[in-house]
Amino acid sequence: MQLITSENNELVKQLKRLNQSNRFCKKEGLTIAEGVHLAKELIHRQDLIKAVVIKEGAGEKNEISEILSQLHASSIKHYEFSQSVFNKVCPVEESAGILCLIRIPSEPEIPQDSDWVFLDDVQDPGNVGTIARSSLASDVSNLAVSKNSAYPWSPKVLRAGMGAHFRMRIFTSLFLEDIKEQTKNVCLVADARGGQSLFNSLWGENGQRTIWVFGNEGQGVSEDTLKLSDKRLIIPLNPAVESLNVAMAATVCLFEQRRRREA
Amino acid sequence: MQLITSENNELVKQLKRLNQSNRFCKKEGLTIAEGVHLAKELIHRQDLIKAVVIKEGAGEKNEISEILSQLHASSIKHYEFSQSVFNKVCPVEESAGILCLIRIPSEPEIPQDSDWVFLDDVQDPGNVGTIARSSLASDVSNLAVSKNSAYPWSPKVLRAGMGAHFRMRIFTSLFLEDIKEQTKNVCLVADARGGQSLFNSLWGENGQRTIWVFGNEGQGVSEDTLKLSDKRLIIPLNPAVESLNVAMAATVCLFEQRRRREA
Repeated sequence: MQLITSENNELVKQLKRLNQSNRFCKKEGLTIAEGVHLAKELIHRQDLIKAVVIKEGAGEKNEISEILSQLHASSIKHYEFSQSVFNKVCPVEESAGILCLIRIPSEPEIPQDSDWVFLDDVQDPGNVGTIARSSLASDVSNLAVSKNSAYPWSPKVLRAGMGAHFRMRIFTSLFLEDIKEQTKNVCLVADARGGQSLFNSLWGENGQRTIWVFGNEGQGVSEDTLKLSDKRLIIPLNPAVESLNVAMAATVCLFEQRRRREA
Repeated sequence: MQLITSENNELVKQLKRLNQSNRFCKKEGLTIAEGVHLAKELIHRQDLIKAVVIKEGAGEKNEISEILSQLHASSIKHYEFSQSVFNKVCPVEESAGILCLIRIPSEPEIPQDSDWVFLDDVQDPGNVGTIARSSLASDVSNLAVSKNSAYPWSPKVLRAGMGAHFRMRIFTSLFLEDIKEQTKNVCLVADARGGQSLFNSLWGENGQRTIWVFGNEGQGVSEDTLKLSDKRLIIPLNPAVESLNVAMAATVCLFEQRRRREA
């Protein structure tokens, strides 16, 4: 395996830019999947991997050497970076010492008969990643985001998603109108400002497919988006708490849907 | 207001140590509440505040000057720190430029007829804070943590709790056994490894009071703790997702309880 110690190396420069700029990720169609968990997920998607990089010495850990031995597709290049160079290109401060340079999958086709989450300007990468994970966990396998949301394929969102990205469909260029029109799903908006009770109102009867909409961390769902909703729902909260974080609110809504489907 | 520019100032040294050491927080009975949201909450708990510190120039922001004008209890000292000194004592990287040095409230009495959350070695400060907020939001107003959990009054947990701490009872030195014995509540353990379905099994009937137990991020709930459970519950998940983050799992359980209470 090649040991790289210079920041002037082309791969090092490329990884640095991918960390710094979502625009560069989009332009190149590339991103960084950091950590053991994502690397394990990628064992089943080796077609996406262009290079795997470990921190100097990390190959001595059993967990990492096992992953490396399984990333054997001939298209995958293996590299070892000196500690200081690795830290410069790693999207998180404390890393187990492994990251993959991967191709961003192309935008999928819109499926029929399937549930959706649409994020309306959710800007925190951790929130977008966490919502991806909760969506998949609750059996919702389509995630679309508005243009002003955090870019779902950025290294930080990818990490927070814990691998959910590779098992669901991610859409970055659809409008809510288009999803509504093409799927005919019912559009449910979670709104901390008002609406019917999530728990006690009728929605999603007879397994009707849904599009759940969650809004910006500060402003909530925009007025334009509200106009597209078929139902506005509020999570009943103790009045001492103004609102839940959007990732928490999304998780509560999505698992209430899962509960109703099981009942 | 006094402008402080030296890191050798006693208050500066104290704030630094409070950030670095939970043990020091406990010993001194003091902690740091960072940010606009917590400062606003503390307007109603001025008895807890010993000092309020703003970053040089932050007093020109309307939001902050308004808070300052309301923190008028005579016991509260006001300070302005130069930018570099403020950044050294601030628990987060991006701050609006206000923090309060506060007294940690003394351990409350065990209430009767009230719901609980018990954290069994939950170690991430963000998770403990988020669970505090979700607990209160779902009407659970008692939070107890095991000795190896993140210290609930640390600056990071306090920030993640978004003020929930000041509206609930926080216990740091109780054993689960003691809570069970003194409250006679039913003990429900969330366990990703197995148990009855959260959604389809009987628990908390007739508004019976509960103690919800959530476990460590990696290991889950310990064997010893499992022995104390009256019921082990699992959140049904899509098999592609190994488990939910503990804060998400706790939120799902606590709002399922809230839903049942409303039904």
